[in-house]
Amino acid sequence: MQVSFVLGSWLHCRLTTGTLDIATIIVMLGPEIDAPHFMLEFIQNDNNSLVLLLDLLPRKDVVLDPHYLKRYYEDLDLEQLRKGLDKIPQSKVYVPSSLYVRSLVSPTAFLYKFKTLQHPHSKLNVGKVEDLHMLVKEILCPTSKEVLFKWLDAFKHKARRVHGDESRKLLDRDTNIKEKGIEIDLSSNMPRLFGHEITNRIIQAYRNGI
Amino acid sequence: MQVSFVLGSWLHCRLTTGTLDIATIIVMLGPEIDAPHFMLEFIQNDNNSLVLLLDLLPRKDVVLDPHYLKRYYEDLDLEQLRKGLDKIPQSKVYVPSSLYVRSLVSPTAFLYKFKTLQHPHSKLNVGKVEDLHMLVKEILCPTSKEVLFKWLDAFKHKARRVHGDESRKLLDRDTNIKEKGIEIDLSSNMPRLFGHEITNRIIQAYRNGI
Repeated sequence: MQVSFVLGSWLHCRLTTGTLDIATIIVMLGPEIDAPHFMLEFIQNDNNSLVLLLDLLPRKDVVLDPHYLKRYYEDLDLEQLRKGLDKIPQSKVYVPSSLYVRSLVSPTAFLYKFKTLQHPHSKLNVGKVEDLHMLVKEILCPTSKEVLFKWLDAFKHKARRVHGDESRKLLDRDTNIKEKGIEIDLSSNMPRLFGHEITNRIIQAYRNGI
Repeated sequence: MQVSFVLGSWLHCRLTTGTLDIATIIVMLGPEIDAPHFMLEFIQNDNNSLVLLLDLLPRKDVVLDPHYLKRYYEDLDLEQLRKGLDKIPQSKVYVPSSLYVRSLVSPTAFLYKFKTLQHPHSKLNVGKVEDLHMLVKEILCPTSKEVLFKWLDAFKHKARRVHGDESRKLLDRDTNIKEKGIEIDLSSNMPRLFGHEITNRIIQAYRNGI
């Protein structure tokens, strides 16, 4: 089996501070192939900003393996797509609060916060929510789809089959990603939504499932 | 011997596009201890902007070793210092052009570009060079010194002695950092300054020296 784990979630919650929407999909591959995992997350905390986390998560320490970096990142030309988002006036590089999550992502990770632009004659520091909808429709959705198709193509046509010790190393690293990375992701937002007790129960159920 | 390699350089060159100044110091430790390496680089390409690369380069794949992340990054509270730079109106996250260099740095790397702020009554999109000098003096120098002292303290008091297979793994990773990382760093700026022939000779001399 090549896909070992899929996490898909859509959270929508009214809080005293506003509405929180989080849509997540993470697809992790099995230890028989070395292609990256896929991650997409949209976080919207208010009407004026949106966070995008989109990446192919490396399966290896790329410092030790520059060929991995070439095959799955340079050759897929992900950097050109990332630069496209970087040029948008509404975008700013987003730095995740967890140091561990930062260390999981690839060198071409799309980590951006988009804010509506302040209108020149408005005294309020907010823009129009329609601008954000347009941005999602015109730029973020097509970019996310393009990254997804690049990943599917790499997964189908570029993935290298691995065996023995190399496969065990991938499995070991993936277990860390699942245990630490996804737990951190779940526990960073869930307590605000459901309180600590329910969050702990969900994380426990997640642990039992992996 | 605990310090295995020091690269210090100061380049100053007048080009047709302006003056280029690059000051670099990289201190790499030996494979007997696992403390991070130290890196500091200032790049100034024109009078209105300055790039800072300041980091403790991890010796390990921190995805596999969250304790390493805790000991050398969370416990040193580097994140608070980084956030200080993030809040400065002139600062913007700097993304190095090389994917390999991006993969070398830690999750708390200080990678920033500082631009002089446009003055409200000026029609030119430039600020005052004195603002940049003030920024270096008041903020960037004290921050860099603080990171250096935190690194020295970690190197002296927190470093773990390693042996056998673990030490060989550090050596293997460090060799990659030296060969790929520093070569990329040298070859990204030197051709503009000295042409390809001299650059190749310098890199060859560097290779023979490591």
